[in-house]
Amino acid sequence: MHETTTDPRTPRLRSWWGWGYADAHPDDTECVAMGALLPGTLARPLPVPRVAGLSVGRPAVTPPPALAHLVTADPGARAAHAMGKAYRDVARALRGRPGRIPDLVARPAGDQDVADLLDWAGGHDVAVIPFGGGSSVVGGVEYRGDDRRAVLSLDLTAMDRVLEIDTGSRSARIQAGALGPVLEDQLRPHGLTLRHFPQSFEFSTLGGWLATRAGGHYATGHTHIDDFVQSLRVVTPAGTSASWRLPASGAGPSPDRLFLGSEGTLGVITEAWMRLRERPRHKASASVAFTGFRRALDAVRAVAQSDLAPANCRLLDPGEAALSGASHDGSAVLVLGFESATAPVDSRLASAVELARAHGGRAEAPSADRDAPADAAVTAWRSAFLRMPYLRDGLARMGAVVETFETAATWDALPALVDAVRTEVGAAARKATGHDALVNCRLTHVYPDGAAPYFTVLVAGRPGDEVAVWDDIKAVASDVLHRHRATITHHHAVGRDHRPAYDLQRPEPFALALRAVKNALDPHGILNPGVLIG
Amino acid sequence: MHETTTDPRTPRLRSWWGWGYADAHPDDTECVAMGALLPGTLARPLPVPRVAGLSVGRPAVTPPPALAHLVTADPGARAAHAMGKAYRDVARALRGRPGRIPDLVARPAGDQDVADLLDWAGGHDVAVIPFGGGSSVVGGVEYRGDDRRAVLSLDLTAMDRVLEIDTGSRSARIQAGALGPVLEDQLRPHGLTLRHFPQSFEFSTLGGWLATRAGGHYATGHTHIDDFVQSLRVVTPAGTSASWRLPASGAGPSPDRLFLGSEGTLGVITEAWMRLRERPRHKASASVAFTGFRRALDAVRAVAQSDLAPANCRLLDPGEAALSGASHDGSAVLVLGFESATAPVDSRLASAVELARAHGGRAEAPSADRDAPADAAVTAWRSAFLRMPYLRDGLARMGAVVETFETAATWDALPALVDAVRTEVGAAARKATGHDALVNCRLTHVYPDGAAPYFTVLVAGRPGDEVAVWDDIKAVASDVLHRHRATITHHHAVGRDHRPAYDLQRPEPFALALRAVKNALDPHGILNPGVLIG
Repeated sequence: MHETTTDPRTPRLRSWWGWGYADAHPDDTECVAMGALLPGTLARPLPVPRVAGLSVGRPAVTPPPALAHLVTADPGARAAHAMGKAYRDVARALRGRPGRIPDLVARPAGDQDVADLLDWAGGHDVAVIPFGGGSSVVGGVEYRGDDRRAVLSLDLTAMDRVLEIDTGSRSARIQAGALGPVLEDQLRPHGLTLRHFPQSFEFSTLGGWLATRAGGHYATGHTHIDDFVQSLRVVTPAGTSASWRLPASGAGPSPDRLFLGSEGTLGVITEAWMRLRERPRHKASASVAFTGFRRALDAVRAVAQSDLAPANCRLLDPGEAALSGASHDGSAVLVLGFESATAPVDSRLASAVELARAHGGRAEAPSADRDAPADAAVTAWRSAFLRMPYLRDGLARMGAVVETFETAATWDALPALVDAVRTEVGAAARKATGHDALVNCRLTHVYPDGAAPYFTVLVAGRPGDEVAVWDDIKAVASDVLHRHRATITHHHAVGRDHRPAYDLQRPEPFALALRAVKNALDPHGILNPGVLIG
Repeated sequence: MHETTTDPRTPRLRSWWGWGYADAHPDDTECVAMGALLPGTLARPLPVPRVAGLSVGRPAVTPPPALAHLVTADPGARAAHAMGKAYRDVARALRGRPGRIPDLVARPAGDQDVADLLDWAGGHDVAVIPFGGGSSVVGGVEYRGDDRRAVLSLDLTAMDRVLEIDTGSRSARIQAGALGPVLEDQLRPHGLTLRHFPQSFEFSTLGGWLATRAGGHYATGHTHIDDFVQSLRVVTPAGTSASWRLPASGAGPSPDRLFLGSEGTLGVITEAWMRLRERPRHKASASVAFTGFRRALDAVRAVAQSDLAPANCRLLDPGEAALSGASHDGSAVLVLGFESATAPVDSRLASAVELARAHGGRAEAPSADRDAPADAAVTAWRSAFLRMPYLRDGLARMGAVVETFETAATWDALPALVDAVRTEVGAAARKATGHDALVNCRLTHVYPDGAAPYFTVLVAGRPGDEVAVWDDIKAVASDVLHRHRATITHHHAVGRDHRPAYDLQRPEPFALALRAVKNALDPHGILNPGVLIG
C-alpha cells in the first residue's frame, strides 16, 4: 500500500506550498472539523496560498547559453523550490512569507550537466541547493544566507532511471533523482524491491534519502538507507567521486559513509548501486495493547533484543494510538509486522506476540495475510501514517502549530527522555500560546541497545505568530534532547532547523575534519550553505 | 573454544618475531615434517631469531622527565614492537633484517597520557605508531619513513579495563587496549559477550579492531566490528573526539565512521561504548560437501540470500578443506553454524542444509550441541583455523613463502575472480620461485550481494630472497583484485603493504577529503606516517 504507481500520462498537480498532491489536501469543511478538535484554533481556515500572490522577482543571475536549456526562471517552479515541507515552511507560505525564492531552478539530465552547473556556480558565487524531492522537514532545501547571493535550486528528478540491474547479486544502479514510486516501478518487473518506504516515499528521491541518511521500511536491523548502499557516484566541485561496487570492504574509512548524511554540502549524489530484496511473499502482522507506556517499552525492548527481527515494530503511546484510530480505550499499542521472501513468518510473529504478552500485553489472535494486514489497529495506523502530512497542512490552515521531531537514545535513557519531552515541550507550547498542547510519542525503529522515539506536538497557535511559536517549541525540544544525550535526529536530518543542536552534539575534532573536507571538495562554498558546516 | 582465558599470574612468553606464544610454535621436527609437504623447501629450519642478534641501537630521542615513566627503551620491547605479524615480517626477522626498530615504546595509562605523548611527539617530529596488539598482517604497525626521524611505538595494552556496563541496553564502555580474552573475561560475569572473534582474537585489541575495521565472528549480517560501535573516544593531536552513545543517528555523516578504518592515522582510539550480546545458549552446526567449487558458490549464495542468517558460513575449496582436515576426497566443504541466546536453531540449520542440498550438496545429519560442534569437519576446521598462523611461521622457517590475502566482490564477479587468482597468482609464484604453488580459497563472510574470499598461497621460496618473492606475489595478487574490482581488503586493513592498491581503489575526491582531514587533525603528520595517506 506504500507503493503508488505513477502514471506519467496523468500527472497529478503537486502542491507548491504544502505536502504532496494538491488534490489530496483536506477541503475547507474538513479543515474546520479538524480545527474543532484542537481548542483555540481559528474559526475558518487560512486561504490556500497562491504563487500569484508572491513577489517572486526577476532572477539576479543568468546562466550562460550552454546551460540555458537546463534552467528555468518560471515563477511557479521557483516558488515550488523555495522551501521544503516542514510545518515551518507551510506556515510561512500560509502567511505569505516564504523563504528566499531561488533565482533559478536547474534540471540536469546527467552527471556532466551537474558538473557544468557546479562549475558555473563556483565561478559566479551562486549558492546551489540540491533539492531532492523537496520533502525536507528540517529546512534542508532552502537558502537562508546573504541576500545578495544568487541561488540555484538543483532538481535531479529528470535523472530517474534504473540504469542496470544485477539480479544474481540483487542490486541495481539507480539515478539519484528517482522518486520512490518511480524506482519501484522499474524494479517491480524484475521481482525486486529496494523496500525503502519513508513516510515521504512518494515525494522524495533516492539521492535525498542517501544525502540525509533516511530511515526506511525496516523497524529493526537495516533501518537506514546507509546499509543498502553498494557504491555512490557523487559530483563534487573538486571532481567526481565514484566508489567501487562492493558487498563490504575494510579498506580505510568508508568513502560512502562520508557522503551519506552530507546533506548536499560536499557534492551532489547522482547515482548509486543499491542492494535490493526479493519482494516478500509471506507477511503477518498483529497488534498488542498495553496499559501504560512504560510496560510497553519493556516489551518492545524484549522483542528488539530477541532474534525475531520484525519488519515493523511500532509502539504508539495512548495519544498516538487514539489519533490514528488504533485504540480508543487509553491503551498503548504495539504494531508488529513480519515479512519474508523465503519462508512463512507466522511462528516468528507468534513468538513476538508471546514475548509482548509476557510483558503484560493483550493481543488479538495474530493474522497472516499476503496482501493486506487483517488486524484493524494495524490497518488504521497505516492509513493514518500516510495521510498525516496532509492533515498537518489542514491543521496549519486552522492556525494550529504542529511540530514533529524524532530522536534515538539507549534504553536506559528512554523513559526519562520521553517524560521530559512530554513535560517540558508541553509546558513550552502552553507558555508560547496559552493553550494546552497534545504531545504524543511513538517508537518508529528499535534496536537491541535503544530505540527511536518520534514526537508529535499539536497546539493552537498565536494567529500570525505561528512560526515564532514553532521556533520556541523547537528550541525547547532540541534542548531536552541535548540534555538527555539523545540525537537531534534519527532520520529527518539536520538541515538548518537542527543546526544549533547538531553543533553541540558533533565532537569538535569531527567538526574540524568536516570543515576541512568542505574546503577541499567545495572550495567556493557554493553547496547548500548553512547546512552542517560553515 | 575461541575464548582463551588469560591468567596474569602465569603469563606466557609472546614471540617477538612470530605469531602468538613462543611455546606454541612448532619445534624443529614439526617444521621439517611440514616442509616435506612443500617441494623445494629447505632441508633444515632456519634458526629461531634472537633479539640479542639484532643491532637495536640507542634511542635517537629522550622523552621529557614528566613522560619518562610511560616509556621504555628496553631492546626486547623495542624489537617486539618493530613489526606486525605478516609473513613478510616473520621472513625479515628470520633473515635478520627486521623493519626499523622504534626508538621507544610507550605504555600510557590513560587518555591524558596519550594526549601528552602526542603533544611531545608533535613538538619533536617523532613518528607515533599506534601498535594495538601488534597482529597487523599488512605492515600497519611499523615505520618505513625517513631514517632520521625518531619513532615511538604506542602500546595501549595497559588500558584494558571494561569501565562501565549497561546490561539493560546491552553495552559496555571498554578501553581500547583490551586484548580479546581480557575484555571477554570482564564481560563474562555479566552474561554478556562482544562475540568478536577474529583469527587474531588472543593477540589483538579492541582499538586495533576498530582502527582496522576488523572482520569478526559473524559470517552474515554484522560482519565487521563497525556495526557494534555505539560511540568512540579518540585522542587526536587537535583534541579529543567523543561521540555520543547512541543506538543510531542520522545527524550528518557518522563521526565514528571516519575513525573506523583510519588505522591510527587520524587519532588514537582510547575507548568505545560497544554493543554486546547475551551469550548464546543454543548452537548447531553442520558441514555440507560439494563436488566442485562453482556449485558450492551457488549454494552459499542461496543461503546468504535467505533470511536464515547463519553465524558461520564458511566455504572451503578442495585444497583448503584438505589442508584443514575437513575433507580428503577432493570435495569443497561448506561449514554452517547457527547460534542464539533466545531460541533453538536446529530448524534454521536444517533449512540451510536443505538449501545446500538443493544445490547439489551432500550433508551429514546436522548435529546440535551446546558446547562443542559434533561435526568432525567443523571441528577439524576450527582447530586448524587457530593453529594456522603458527604453522605459517613453521613453514617460514623452512624457507617457504606464505601469502594470505582476502577481498570481497559481488556474486557476479566472484567466479572469474577466483579463477584469475588461482591462475595468475599461481603463475607468478612459480615464476618467482621455479616451484609449483598451492593456491587455496575459502569464503569467510557472505552477503546477499557478494562474498569475501580468502586466499592462501604456499610455495617454496628462493633462499634468502623470500621477501622479494613475497613482494612479487603480492603485486600480482593486488593487480588481479584491482582488475576485477575486488576490494584490496575486506578485513585485514590497508597498512603499508596494500597502500598502492588502496590508492587506486579510493575515489580521488575522497583522497582529497582524507588528506584535508589528516592535515586538520594531525598537522605535524606524526601519526602512523605512510598509512592510507601522505
